[in-house]
Amino acid sequence: MKREDLTEKLLDIKREKGWSWKYICEKIGGYSEVLITGAILGQMKLTKPQAANAGELFGLSKSEVAMLNETPMRGMPMPPTDPLIYRFYELVMVNGPAWKALIEEEYGDGIMSAIDFDMVMERLPNPKGDRVKFTMSGKFLPYKYYGASGNVPEYGFKEG
Amino acid sequence: MKREDLTEKLLDIKREKGWSWKYICEKIGGYSEVLITGAILGQMKLTKPQAANAGELFGLSKSEVAMLNETPMRGMPMPPTDPLIYRFYELVMVNGPAWKALIEEEYGDGIMSAIDFDMVMERLPNPKGDRVKFTMSGKFLPYKYYGASGNVPEYGFKEG
Amino acid sequence: MKREDLTEKLLDIKREKGWSWKYICEKIGGYSEVLITGAILGQMKLTKPQAANAGELFGLSKSEVAMLNETPMRGMPMPPTDPLIYRFYELVMVNGPAWKALIEEEYGDGIMSAIDFDMVMERLPNPKGDRVKFTMSGKFLPYKYYGASGNVPEYGFKEG
Amino acid sequence: MKREDLTEKLLDIKREKGWSWKYICEKIGGYSEVLITGAILGQMKLTKPQAANAGELFGLSKSEVAMLNETPMRGMPMPPTDPLIYRFYELVMVNGPAWKALIEEEYGDGIMSAIDFDMVMERLPNPKGDRVKFTMSGKFLPYKYYGASGNVPEYGFKEG
Amino acid sequence: MKREDLTEKLLDIKREKGWSWKYICEKIGGYSEVLITGAILGQMKLTKPQAANAGELFGLSKSEVAMLNETPMRGMPMPPTDPLIYRFYELVMVNGPAWKALIEEEYGDGIMSAIDFDMVMERLPNPKGDRVKFTMSGKFLPYKYYGASGNVPEYGFKEG
Amino acid sequence: MKREDLTEKLLDIKREKGWSWKYICEKIGGYSEVLITGAILGQMKLTKPQAANAGELFGLSKSEVAMLNETPMRGMPMPPTDPLIYRFYELVMVNGPAWKALIEEEYGDGIMSAIDFDMVMERLPNPKGDRVKFTMSGKFLPYKYYGASGNVPEYGFKEG
Amino acid sequence: MKREDLTEKLLDIKREKGWSWKYICEKIGGYSEVLITGAILGQMKLTKPQAANAGELFGLSKSEVAMLNETPMRGMPMPPTDPLIYRFYELVMVNGPAWKALIEEEYGDGIMSAIDFDMVMERLPNPKGDRVKFTMSGKFLPYKYYGASGNVPEYGFKEG
Amino acid sequence: MKREDLTEKLLDIKREKGWSWKYICEKIGGYSEVLITGAILGQMKLTKPQAANAGELFGLSKSEVAMLNETPMRGMPMPPTDPLIYRFYELVMVNGPAWKALIEEEYGDGIMSAIDFDMVMERLPNPKGDRVKFTMSGKFLPYKYYGASGNVPEYGFKEG
Amino acid sequence: MKREDLTEKLLDIKREKGWSWKYICEKIGGYSEVLITGAILGQMKLTKPQAANAGELFGLSKSEVAMLNETPMRGMPMPPTDPLIYRFYELVMVNGPAWKALIEEEYGDGIMSAIDFDMVMERLPNPKGDRVKFTMSGKFLPYKYYGASGNVPEYGFKEG
Amino acid sequence: MKREDLTEKLLDIKREKGWSWKYICEKIGGYSEVLITGAILGQMKLTKPQAANAGELFGLSKSEVAMLNETPMRGMPMPPTDPLIYRFYELVMVNGPAWKALIEEEYGDGIMSAIDFDMVMERLPNPKGDRVKFTMSGKFLPYKYYGASGNVPEYGFKEG
Repeated sequence: MKREDLTEKLLDIKREKGWSWKYICEKIGGYSEVLITGAILGQMKLTKPQAANAGELFGLSKSEVAMLNETPMRGMPMPPTDPLIYRFYELVMVNGPAWKALIEEEYGDGIMSAIDFDMVMERLPNPKGDRVKFTMSGKFLPYKYYGASGNVPEYGFKEG
Repeated sequence: MKREDLTEKLLDIKREKGWSWKYICEKIGGYSEVLITGAILGQMKLTKPQAANAGELFGLSKSEVAMLNETPMRGMPMPPTDPLIYRFYELVMVNGPAWKALIEEEYGDGIMSAIDFDMVMERLPNPKGDRVKFTMSGKFLPYKYYGASGNVPEYGFKEG
Repeated sequence: MKREDLTEKLLDIKREKGWSWKYICEKIGGYSEVLITGAILGQMKLTKPQAANAGELFGLSKSEVAMLNETPMRGMPMPPTDPLIYRFYELVMVNGPAWKALIEEEYGDGIMSAIDFDMVMERLPNPKGDRVKFTMSGKFLPYKYYGASGNVPEYGFKEG
Repeated sequence: MKREDLTEKLLDIKREKGWSWKYICEKIGGYSEVLITGAILGQMKLTKPQAANAGELFGLSKSEVAMLNETPMRGMPMPPTDPLIYRFYELVMVNGPAWKALIEEEYGDGIMSAIDFDMVMERLPNPKGDRVKFTMSGKFLPYKYYGASGNVPEYGFKEG
Repeated sequence: MKREDLTEKLLDIKREKGWSWKYICEKIGGYSEVLITGAILGQMKLTKPQAANAGELFGLSKSEVAMLNETPMRGMPMPPTDPLIYRFYELVMVNGPAWKALIEEEYGDGIMSAIDFDMVMERLPNPKGDRVKFTMSGKFLPYKYYGASGNVPEYGFKEG
Repeated sequence: MKREDLTEKLLDIKREKGWSWKYICEKIGGYSEVLITGAILGQMKLTKPQAANAGELFGLSKSEVAMLNETPMRGMPMPPTDPLIYRFYELVMVNGPAWKALIEEEYGDGIMSAIDFDMVMERLPNPKGDRVKFTMSGKFLPYKYYGASGNVPEYGFKEG
Repeated sequence: MKREDLTEKLLDIKREKGWSWKYICEKIGGYSEVLITGAILGQMKLTKPQAANAGELFGLSKSEVAMLNETPMRGMPMPPTDPLIYRFYELVMVNGPAWKALIEEEYGDGIMSAIDFDMVMERLPNPKGDRVKFTMSGKFLPYKYYGASGNVPEYGFKEG
Repeated sequence: MKREDLTEKLLDIKREKGWSWKYICEKIGGYSEVLITGAILGQMKLTKPQAANAGELFGLSKSEVAMLNETPMRGMPMPPTDPLIYRFYELVMVNGPAWKALIEEEYGDGIMSAIDFDMVMERLPNPKGDRVKFTMSGKFLPYKYYGASGNVPEYGFKEG
Repeated sequence: MKREDLTEKLLDIKREKGWSWKYICEKIGGYSEVLITGAILGQMKLTKPQAANAGELFGLSKSEVAMLNETPMRGMPMPPTDPLIYRFYELVMVNGPAWKALIEEEYGDGIMSAIDFDMVMERLPNPKGDRVKFTMSGKFLPYKYYGASGNVPEYGFKEG
Repeated sequence: MKREDLTEKLLDIKREKGWSWKYICEKIGGYSEVLITGAILGQMKLTKPQAANAGELFGLSKSEVAMLNETPMRGMPMPPTDPLIYRFYELVMVNGPAWKALIEEEYGDGIMSAIDFDMVMERLPNPKGDRVKFTMSGKFLPYKYYGASGNVPEYGFKEG
């Protein structure tokens, strides 16, 4: 069984039952909807209790439940051909250099973590057309500049 | 003169003068720092008054000022090799499918605009390590499903 | 069930019954032929009543009808190898820079929406050989240049 | 001298003089603005009289005028990273299969020519936001299915 | 059923029966061998009578016969890894620029059609080793340079 | 000096002098126009006498003449973006499998040489539009199936 | 049946029977082990008697035997990810330019044939570690520089 | 000035002076040799005092010193064609899945940081041939699974 | 049976039984966990006794056991989309040039072998967050610069 | 100065002087012609005495001589577009799987080194056309399967 086969099965059941993502996320519980939906789509891992909830909801076998508790091989082919996903990709492509310049000026050399990261999506009502609001925060991780004494005791070519 | 040559020149001056992005953005004024920094890096367009400010600050020729007022050929090669920019790319690659599912459930078929879009970057102090916070909002654009009578008067193969 | 499997099934039925696209589009109704054909081919979403019509026409299960009412993962691999589709791709590749220059001169910085977009295809009889006529219109979306006060209340790195 | 160097020179002059595309197209004359702008950007060929007009306007050498009268090596790298051009690319990627199906049903096997092709861009005023209208027509070219007697006298492996 | 599955089935039957391409082409009739072989391999369309002949020869279902009468999604992945096909690809890669220069000098701006095109392959006996002879002809299509009055009535941005 | 710089220089002179390819080919002499044009464009090698003719015609240095007598690094980036060259590429992409099947049936396993190859381009007048005719022939090279006794004395893993 | 399915079947039988390649090559006979192993792996063609031997050895159907007598679609995806195959690829990538320079100096313009080619692999015992020895020879094929009189009677654009 | 131009200049001076990397690293001081060499090659950032040391050693301008204190656009094209670098790439390609499995089993979902990372290279003398020893350690970063209450106050689509 | 199908089967059993990698590696024995896990995932080869152990543990057929004793076609698609594996790829992309410079300075021209290579992964407890430690060593292989007398008796183009 | 600029300079001198590769290799001496030619073309490193010889022959500066003594960044873009180099690439693409199978059967798991490797090219006179003969040998390197006790003292996750 591949993770994508399990995803296909879960989507088939969702479709047949007429469930919404909101409903599924409530039944599984505990995490944000982005993470739980991501897990159903094969990008995130559920905890054992969450996977058990999913197993009950979808009527899954023990192996299928175990698979939902495994970290999947993450990622999707890029560039995305789907317009909705492409717009996010475009935001990175157009704004990436400015984000790099400003973050490095403010924090020094390093990155914003994509691992220690959280986000909230909200609907912003607007008379000209509602907006999608993303609030995200990622831990800043400074580049570690190590020298002769780091975690690793010493550095340099030693003859033995 | 290519836009990338102008960018290189502006960065040379910034480096020689020891200016920060914050300083440059204040001098040019009017827009968020992401947009003005983006314009200096060749991804955004300045208004005429802003371009004039930039011209005065950097000592630019009339042609160079005019170029800053042009919409550039936007985008950078992907996938990004730089770790800071890559992390944003990875966020799209890993979360894209979940964002698509949740936005479509909430708003129906459509996209979050990458054009009618704004954002704020803030520093979130945190004892475990400060965080980078992004707050972004994009207008939701519903897919237009047109029929026999749209803006365009009629549809279908007509023999003439 | 994947969307491409449903497409394959629908094309098998179309082939067996000897139906034309025109016939299928009339039976499903409500949208232009480009959109309905696109939905059958897995690129567009039908409304619930349209999906019900399709279900009746093709004899589909409840799940298959539900799938036609879902927004698919859109797009196809590029560059297109098929000559008919390639010619459109070539038009973009050759004319893209001129379209960009002229639209930006006329409207300012922004794009023509591919989402709020409609089109009509017509046959133009011509003694030297009939022509295919496309009339398309897309909403112009100006790049939003936001500043310290946008939808998002403020901008800049704040220490907390 | 490469064609892209000439393009760069022409854009430098346009920028310095503050000319619009409309002004340049009027001065060169004779063709639609898409074609003349395309020629300045290195995708189309001007006739000798048009090239002479361009030479006078921009103050070009004899060689530069001759180059504008040459057919350039056409095309740009794809996929386009610029949002304005990308939207057209996306339209082909999403609608290509439906266009193929409908054109083939109406006309039989063949293509819409990208060579015997014309187009008009117009501004459509609209209270919800003006629209960009494209009207294009291309000659339908039926696939030539040749047999034992075509333009070429005969077919088949002959021993000599 | 996908076109490639039908191709696989047809090749299985050809193999089992021990038929040559020459034999199959004679039985289907009417077109050159390149076209009929191309149709069996999923690149060309047969007419209804030809498809009927193929159906009788191979013992096909009504749907399979109908599929042979459809225009397939043409093309194969490039660059070709097979040495025989690669040599043709190499001829284009090495000679393409010269062909372009000479055709444009002789005919003006335009292309040799790959749609209104015919060809003959012949065996040329030769004591040093037989040769493969290709005789091909394609219609020259001049680039259409349209102006303010083309098939489409007028050109230019109009305010409404 | 790179071969592409020499090509650029030769094209500059051709443009300034207003020479045709036909004229250049006559002055250099001895080979078909496809080969001589190819050599000027950096894909073929001229003989010493031909290179001397070219040197005289274009006023080249001794090193430049020597470079025309060298075999260049052949080939151009693929897929071609230029429509004229693309059409040839498309012919290979669409017809490649049929050519392979028919050549192998007629000649057995092997290839048509792209090295021992000649071609003629001719204009075919035609009331519906003139045609471009290519007559090409390449030597058939059978795959060499070697055994225990070939040019190389023996085969198999030997212990020494 | 695809060639890769046949390959998979043959490898399954080889694995189950515990046969070595040496054993299989002896049973099929007549060619070098590289060629016969290549045929089993789907890259080469066996003669009819060899295919019959293979059919008897592996217990194949008439169709499967016929498939082994067909020229396959050759080649594998590149760059190779497998270390053993990659090392050969690297040898070409690093030494290719030198081989080109030296072969062209010695033989003139042309190539070493990959079709009229033979090779022997041998084990070279060596106290520091045994070596793999390849002895290969390919026919040198001079580039054919054709003129106004080649195999094809004449050259040049003729008006008809 | 681009970072790669500065790298080229520094390597020219290193070559002319006959300096070793060891010597340069000692003169700049403070970090491991991998980091300082990386900075000279345009992949790392030096501190201000280090950049000043480098400026004195190489005789750099104020701007060049400032550039060494900037975070560069990191990364190089992949796959690497150079054999030495390729071997590391291959190690990731071959062992990546096993590393993923074992790290996730030991630590749970997360990654080994490439930012909070240090390493030491040492020469291991060995009678059969000396070895290169790498000792590296990266901080394990657990995937943050956030819920309705994270750093960001709340989650879910809210109507406003 | 393909190696990837066997991998899928083994993972299904592991999941159903709830086994850890540590448990599997102990049962198979003899090699480091990276190698045994790699073999289960289709990148490494087990010895016959190890494969027999695996066969007993997983209940495999004789053919499946034999397959575990075969060297697989190694490698995975790159760039890796999974974040954990990507971080290693990034380390090579960012540090590759410095590693090359330092290894060549210390050892001369050559590479660190990815074949004669061993590694140990360890958990480094750390109050700020545990670390993953890799200790790896690869044999340095000097580039062999051969002359007129190498393993192969002589060199140079000889007339025979 | 980049290595490719030095290569260009050396080729300019070779061309101007009319030297052959054979002559250059004799003057530099000591290595096979493949290696010395490779060094001139930027793929190999010369020893100090060889570089000194090259410096004298070509009249190089001290820096240029030093550069010839550096290991270059090796490799060229693939797939090769030049026919002569492509044929070698094709040999790997077509024969790679068979070489892998036979080498692994004979030697066990491992590779043929591309580093500890030598080769000789010879001209084989032949009445049907001379042949190019390559004799190459590379050291077989067995995959090192390490366990709990390798060069690195121990293996396994240790808690500290």
